Amino acid sequence: MNSKLPHLETTIFTVMSKLASENQAINLAQGFPDFDPHSSLIESLNYYSYQNYNQYAPMIGVEKLRNFIVEKVEKFHKSIYHPENEVTITNGASQAIFTAIAAVIEKGDEVIIFEPAYDLYKPAVEMFGGVVKPIRLTYPDYKIDYSKLKELVTEQTKLVIFNNPNNPSGKIFSEDDLIQIEAILKDKNCFIISDEVYEHMTFDGKEHQSFARIPSLKDRTFITSSFGKLCHVTGWKVGYVLAGAELMKEFRKVHQYNVFCVHTPSQYAIADYLEDENNYLELNNFFQQKRNYFVDGLASTKFELIPSEGTYFISANYKNYSDLNDRAFAEELTIKNKVATIPFSAFYHDKFDENVIRFCFAKQEETLDAALERLNQL
Amino acid sequence: MNSKLPHLETTIFTVMSKLASENQAINLAQGFPDFDPHSSLIESLNYYSYQNYNQYAPMIGVEKLRNFIVEKVEKFHKSIYHPENEVTITNGASQAIFTAIAAVIEKGDEVIIFEPAYDLYKPAVEMFGGVVKPIRLTYPDYKIDYSKLKELVTEQTKLVIFNNPNNPSGKIFSEDDLIQIEAILKDKNCFIISDEVYEHMTFDGKEHQSFARIPSLKDRTFITSSFGKLCHVTGWKVGYVLAGAELMKEFRKVHQYNVFCVHTPSQYAIADYLEDENNYLELNNFFQQKRNYFVDGLASTKFELIPSEGTYFISANYKNYSDLNDRAFAEELTIKNKVATIPFSAFYHDKFDENVIRFCFAKQEETLDAALERLNQL
Ligand SMILES: CSCCC(=O)C(=O)O
Ligand SMILES: CSCCC(=O)C(=O)O
Repeated sequence: MNSKLPHLETTIFTVMSKLASENQAINLAQGFPDFDPHSSLIESLNYYSYQNYNQYAPMIGVEKLRNFIVEKVEKFHKSIYHPENEVTITNGASQAIFTAIAAVIEKGDEVIIFEPAYDLYKPAVEMFGGVVKPIRLTYPDYKIDYSKLKELVTEQTKLVIFNNPNNPSGKIFSEDDLIQIEAILKDKNCFIISDEVYEHMTFDGKEHQSFARIPSLKDRTFITSSFGKLCHVTGWKVGYVLAGAELMKEFRKVHQYNVFCVHTPSQYAIADYLEDENNYLELNNFFQQKRNYFVDGLASTKFELIPSEGTYFISANYKNYSDLNDRAFAEELTIKNKVATIPFSAFYHDKFDENVIRFCFAKQEETLDAALERLNQL
Repeated sequence: MNSKLPHLETTIFTVMSKLASENQAINLAQGFPDFDPHSSLIESLNYYSYQNYNQYAPMIGVEKLRNFIVEKVEKFHKSIYHPENEVTITNGASQAIFTAIAAVIEKGDEVIIFEPAYDLYKPAVEMFGGVVKPIRLTYPDYKIDYSKLKELVTEQTKLVIFNNPNNPSGKIFSEDDLIQIEAILKDKNCFIISDEVYEHMTFDGKEHQSFARIPSLKDRTFITSSFGKLCHVTGWKVGYVLAGAELMKEFRKVHQYNVFCVHTPSQYAIADYLEDENNYLELNNFFQQKRNYFVDGLASTKFELIPSEGTYFISANYKNYSDLNDRAFAEELTIKNKVATIPFSAFYHDKFDENVIRFCFAKQEETLDAALERLNQL
């Protein structure tokens, strides 16, 4: 068989989760919580499924959930989106990003990504004939070199994909970063995807800087996010995309034929659950405590930690333990030490390797305890 | 803004459902049941969500559900698929079809579709640069002209999309049809998508002819189907795709970056529910009775019905009522008479119009009664 996508490999998340389960390792690799969502959310799912909200939702998503999103963005970022024309509910943030790429990328279009980058960006761009132009950010501070970005943005640039709070680095790009990006992009013609799935998991008082704060770019920007992350239900596959009305029309042309719509009772349940804003405002503290707990537990190891300012993740350089490359080290850690992580090289197109692995700390205390015990025996 | 997809319109299902709700019309347009699924299915959803099956499912889908599919296909069609390598759970049949197209179609590839055709095939093919070669089937019998098919299949043909039982015509293509298609395709190199979402809604003892019955084409065939249809939960967005192992690898390359995975508790709930095979074997009778009820109710109207051998749908020529084109007639019927339907021209690339509209009879008796009353007043 002649493969259309001969170089495409299985996503690192499937690879490491499979290796974890084959080796009965603790899975700190793939980003998902291993604890229960609030029972009120489950009750609400049950309520709507019993009330027979079980048939197709509107293609653009359930009204109440769209209204919630628009109100939240106005409240936090003073930015106005139209609930009918500028927001669409998606099958998770992945489908939002994939569909946004599908809606704008044609053969030969250049797409700028910041590496380490979530592993779907590059293959999704290439599926539509796009050419990825990566900017490499490096250990330990993962700063953007703006002169490089300026150089890379040309007439051929069709799209820039940004991710803040950043997975895997745990970095939060600042207001100043957004200002610099705006300055570089404002006279250009390119689109932007701003992947903001960890928007409500920021620590030590650091504020999430949404692209919704840049009105001058609104018409060209897709903002994507995830209720799976916001509500501890990554398996419900509900996310969303915001975009200016004209751009959203383009998005929906693809969305309607890709998935058509999203799990109906889950959309209603999430909308009810998020009416109580404590249910998501508490996340900053909740995950900060988990981060602190995990960091404290690693204090006497020889890992060199990268500060985690947000997200589910903290990453570490392991060179005090091993000369292996990061993939081999992560595999060994899974097989021998029974703790699964993600090697950073999976997030670079050229497998660039600085001996860094990513831990997910969105786990119950017992899970973190068990992992910490093993990591302290290294 | 320069649109990548300037000619792409909003899907007819969204258009007609919206028009129906704006006009308080009875929605016999979009295909979905308006009755409750079995309570045991809902109970099962609740069980799994309370047991915290709420995080990412495996990318390929939940094992129990994959096993069910494989066993069912073996039982009904004597065809063996490997549960790990040859079946993937999808976000509904739409995402299965879209992703299969994405996995194989490149710029310039020719794709044969049989019109009237479900409205996602053509735009999805074109999104990936494919060129649609339609074969027109016509009122009232929608037979395939095999000499035309033979002519159309060339070295450039990359894919043939077949749909049986057929939406919108309600026709079931016979074993002989499959034999003829096999004869034409067996020496060619093209892929096949066989969209079989109505496989368990066949009437008057007619048997569903799955493409799984053609082992010589298995390695090149995607079979797609829908649990939304099988379990009366179109809003749960769970479907599946079967394909030979090598082809399935190609499918998953796209799937993993499109949606990654599917609603977890729904997958478990459906797997439990379908353990009792009566829960789906009863559908033939159940929907046949609905069809009969609706057909009886139309007996004294001047609609000329096309026999419905399967699916949710029965279609009718309305020329005894009006000279309007089918789109205009369907709109008028929605706005004035408060019954929404789908005009057949939406399923032809050239809006070919034989004055036929499609009714969905997958409705409660009260809904059908109310619609029949209005249709009898025409
Ligand atoms: C879709 S599986 C990956 C989950 C995730 O966001 C991550 O681990 O980075
Ligand atoms: C995805 S909405 C369309 C539902 C359907 O299968 C039909 O009405 O033909």
